[in-house]
Amino acid sequence: MKGEKNVDFEQLKDIANKLRIDSIIATNASKSGHPTSCASMAEIMSVLFFHTMRYKISAPKDASADRFILSKGHAAPILYAAWAEAGLFSVEELKNLRKLDSDLEGHPTPRLNFVDVGTGSLGQGLAVAAGMAYVGKYFDQAPYRVYCLVGDGEAAEGSVWESLHFASHYKLDNLVVIFDVNRLGQSEPTSLQHQMEVYDARLKAFGLNSLVVDGHDVTELVKAFDQAASTAGKPTAIVAKTYKGKGFPGIEDLENWHGKALGAEGEKIIKHLQSQIKTSKITLKPKPPLAEAPKVHIGDITLSSAPAYKAGEQVATRLAYGTALKKIADTNMRVIALDGDTKNSTFSDKLRNAYPDRYVECFIAEQNLVGVATGAACRDRAVVFASTFAAFFTRTFDQIRMGAISQSNINLAGSHCGVSIGEDGPSQMGLEDLAMFRAVPTATVFYPSDAVSTERAVELAANTRGICYIRTSRPNTNIIYPNDEVFKVGQAKVVRQSAKDRVLLIGAGITLHETLAAADKLKAEGVEARVLDPFTIKPLDEAAVREHARAVDGRVVVVEDHYQAGGLGEAVLSALALERGAVVSHLCVRAVPRSGPPADLVRHYGLSADHVLRAAKQLLQA
Amino acid sequence: MKGEKNVDFEQLKDIANKLRIDSIIATNASKSGHPTSCASMAEIMSVLFFHTMRYKISAPKDASADRFILSKGHAAPILYAAWAEAGLFSVEELKNLRKLDSDLEGHPTPRLNFVDVGTGSLGQGLAVAAGMAYVGKYFDQAPYRVYCLVGDGEAAEGSVWESLHFASHYKLDNLVVIFDVNRLGQSEPTSLQHQMEVYDARLKAFGLNSLVVDGHDVTELVKAFDQAASTAGKPTAIVAKTYKGKGFPGIEDLENWHGKALGAEGEKIIKHLQSQIKTSKITLKPKPPLAEAPKVHIGDITLSSAPAYKAGEQVATRLAYGTALKKIADTNMRVIALDGDTKNSTFSDKLRNAYPDRYVECFIAEQNLVGVATGAACRDRAVVFASTFAAFFTRTFDQIRMGAISQSNINLAGSHCGVSIGEDGPSQMGLEDLAMFRAVPTATVFYPSDAVSTERAVELAANTRGICYIRTSRPNTNIIYPNDEVFKVGQAKVVRQSAKDRVLLIGAGITLHETLAAADKLKAEGVEARVLDPFTIKPLDEAAVREHARAVDGRVVVVEDHYQAGGLGEAVLSALALERGAVVSHLCVRAVPRSGPPADLVRHYGLSADHVLRAAKQLLQA
Repeated sequence: MKGEKNVDFEQLKDIANKLRIDSIIATNASKSGHPTSCASMAEIMSVLFFHTMRYKISAPKDASADRFILSKGHAAPILYAAWAEAGLFSVEELKNLRKLDSDLEGHPTPRLNFVDVGTGSLGQGLAVAAGMAYVGKYFDQAPYRVYCLVGDGEAAEGSVWESLHFASHYKLDNLVVIFDVNRLGQSEPTSLQHQMEVYDARLKAFGLNSLVVDGHDVTELVKAFDQAASTAGKPTAIVAKTYKGKGFPGIEDLENWHGKALGAEGEKIIKHLQSQIKTSKITLKPKPPLAEAPKVHIGDITLSSAPAYKAGEQVATRLAYGTALKKIADTNMRVIALDGDTKNSTFSDKLRNAYPDRYVECFIAEQNLVGVATGAACRDRAVVFASTFAAFFTRTFDQIRMGAISQSNINLAGSHCGVSIGEDGPSQMGLEDLAMFRAVPTATVFYPSDAVSTERAVELAANTRGICYIRTSRPNTNIIYPNDEVFKVGQAKVVRQSAKDRVLLIGAGITLHETLAAADKLKAEGVEARVLDPFTIKPLDEAAVREHARAVDGRVVVVEDHYQAGGLGEAVLSALALERGAVVSHLCVRAVPRSGPPADLVRHYGLSADHVLRAAKQLLQA
Repeated sequence: MKGEKNVDFEQLKDIANKLRIDSIIATNASKSGHPTSCASMAEIMSVLFFHTMRYKISAPKDASADRFILSKGHAAPILYAAWAEAGLFSVEELKNLRKLDSDLEGHPTPRLNFVDVGTGSLGQGLAVAAGMAYVGKYFDQAPYRVYCLVGDGEAAEGSVWESLHFASHYKLDNLVVIFDVNRLGQSEPTSLQHQMEVYDARLKAFGLNSLVVDGHDVTELVKAFDQAASTAGKPTAIVAKTYKGKGFPGIEDLENWHGKALGAEGEKIIKHLQSQIKTSKITLKPKPPLAEAPKVHIGDITLSSAPAYKAGEQVATRLAYGTALKKIADTNMRVIALDGDTKNSTFSDKLRNAYPDRYVECFIAEQNLVGVATGAACRDRAVVFASTFAAFFTRTFDQIRMGAISQSNINLAGSHCGVSIGEDGPSQMGLEDLAMFRAVPTATVFYPSDAVSTERAVELAANTRGICYIRTSRPNTNIIYPNDEVFKVGQAKVVRQSAKDRVLLIGAGITLHETLAAADKLKAEGVEARVLDPFTIKPLDEAAVREHARAVDGRVVVVEDHYQAGGLGEAVLSALALERGAVVSHLCVRAVPRSGPPADLVRHYGLSADHVLRAAKQLLQA
């Protein structure tokens, strides 16, 4: 441990006040923002950025550098100020805060070269930090450390406690979480205010090395961070007692100052803060990383062997997911899998059985699962596949939404979609997952309909940036494609076609099989039907949908094992929005389903071949 | 406290084994289900249903009765068995478990007259129980108590810790949470296994009266429940050490038996269990409620005064939400509001300022917020409005999804939708909330465009069963409607119309104002445009959309401050799905937005009057 006698505490104090001044100036320039939320953490930032953290100004997201996640993203101005004062860009730039042509947004996003993930929806940063720390400790085995600053208001989010448990369970001693306990929330004091002993007891019970400090005392902070660095076997929590608006006379520790620029008041306060500063300029420099992190290649991932199914075989797409996951893990050491205690249902256990060290059990805590996945994928350290039931990803919609803002590169696989899961009933059925993932601008949504295309979906997802979602089904279904079929993102397959086709049937997953059965029945009645497998729902192959719709005089039947809104049906409608002459009959689940045998439910909720047949005939008669 | 000497412990033990037998028979009949998860909690159920709880078989959901929430919903068979053995229905009925024509579903739903909410997505029951307990203690001021059984696997869900904190913060001493610590999850042991001291320390740190017991010892359980009843000022946690598959020789405490019917093995085990039973029949009867809960009327809610805006006034819809919330609270004592520390932004503080006792601050823990709302609304005890930023309801999608299964009757208000919030940036913008709520089968989605319609939306929501969602905007906007305008769910308003209209413009919230400006511009160029305000997005007034689309030769422009998928645009496309000849130009947010001034963002992301104008002209030229 570094002796504290060599630390320039005076300068650390002064830097804290400089950061306060910068935060006031920036928020005054933008006439909005959260200067008082910055003020409470000024000493923490000063010590982290000018004493504790090891990083390079020349490469802010270097793989070897310590990471810092600002979970309370509304304190963005002081994060920007710290990087500016450390020399990454001009302090003058801070005045462009929140302008449309500046990347210095109201909350941090990775449009900035020193930000790993977007924050601003509270309680999410720690899971990301834990994912980074897990990778650092177990995969990179490098000495870089991860720091995450959490506000006391957001400490009420359950996701924070999921991540604390995860971090202590996996002994992430390279992780330090700092709680900025400034007592005041947005609209009233936090529920725990300054009950430091309650935080301390909770954190100790959750297995952390908890250290309560005066968050405005740089000496205590330096000591605590040094102590964290020398604590093995558990993550450290630094519980910092602070004051909102610290150092702002007439504002400090008072309510009704959340999220407000100080305006004219700010000028006086800046003068006051300047009067506190004793050293003339910042001479402290960041310390460099201790060692290089290993070089990692996460591109060009392939299945170790082509799909190998026999004609007539019946295989669930969820099983093919597991098979493919293991196969891509064969060819790249950095493919890892995470699951939330459903690995024997999603079949992510196939990777775990082959490579136990590359599987991370996240237990039943889906928000943390997705957050850890996001963190693990940061700085291109790993190719991450996280799985659970499709339904339970709804638990993580906020994390997924923030994942889009974070330019996150993760793969999520949701099994047990739709009523076709059967007896377990509606709580276990993913019936809104397509609506959720289609609403994510950066998402690619795969919905494979047989085992061959599922294996290729996994391979494509591994090589596609952004959030990839793979929707798999529980029941066994026929193999449709030859083992050497080639698939592309955004390219639909026409699985049945003739020159005489009069209606276009579109299905996916189990409903593609229903459309094929319907096409047989239609043929028996003398009507030829074209059948289209979209393969990806987003991007949907809109050109193919339009082309084949035109070929059948605009008659389209879409059938999906999903609720009415936001799924495949509405994706097809969007593709045809400007097509005069197209009509779409949309079969989907229109009520909260019941328990029952899968085939009974598919019939009961109107998704069967007979329903497709009837819908097609109605269009033909119209 | 009741003396334990009068308790028939032998019978309680025997009932536990009867419940085990019933659970095996039911799951064997359905060839699926979770008998081992039932076995670990058999003594807990026996003691609760035949000793501790006060309820009426004649009225299972009587307002005066103790409540029981099975958070680990997959143990449904033993819940059903308990009610059957208590006399609510024939034990023979249990064999219909998981059949399509039976309400005994794989996980409990309120299709059953003894179930308050659907469970099965883990970690949600305790928030509901806390909501019930809050109402019992503070609004009903009745002696009924609330019991919630939580599995140890689901105790990893952060939402559980949000609710524990809420329960202790509000001193809910009428709430007892029982942790069934059976050591085994679905796919492997839980992370804490039988570390009872860790559970105990965490629960004590979270402010609970924590009691660790042998969960298979009816004597210890009786004592613990009695102790809970005599503990004032804090909720009790009974941490029960149990074994999965307890009493099933060859299965007890072993892995790989999660979620499996016992099959042939079951017959032997039933014989074994029968051999343990000593008393001949169940003679224990539930104790009746201690006192009647107050009569409550939650219908016919009205604003205390009509909207009172002046022409030319500019008012944000979020402000009108607060105004209306206070007005309906004037006329019904059971209107309550909940918020997650955003009350001065959503304006739910208007209710709080008028009626502080009817406002429940839930702090920054949105999952618990929605769960507490759900619980508070159960058994028609309250008219609940829960608010936060629209974006943060994504955190609660799983709770909302389960709310549909639960037939939940709650009102959710999301403020700060879309890019029009401005400088705070994308993390704070609700851009996927319409997709989320439209995907909920039981939801009604209001998207009012001025203050008058917002007030009426609040009044209508209060009187509409199911999940109501009200989407409000941050910026001030013009008043459109006269103060006496009448609104209905599913009824659109045509706000501009002439016989010469050639294009239909549809907007909502801030974009309705853009369409009106666009109509002015079009008129200046000699083109008449019809403008439609949908008012409710779900149900959308599909007949009006079709009628007015036909009137303008099928040319429709939709513009919304929301992402492309699942929102107003796709709702309109669904309404026109079977209309040959309709074309829809859809303006919406198609990329992750930036920070910036509201008007700049509206322009930058293509939602402005000029964009609507251009889209309309393109349709006219096509």
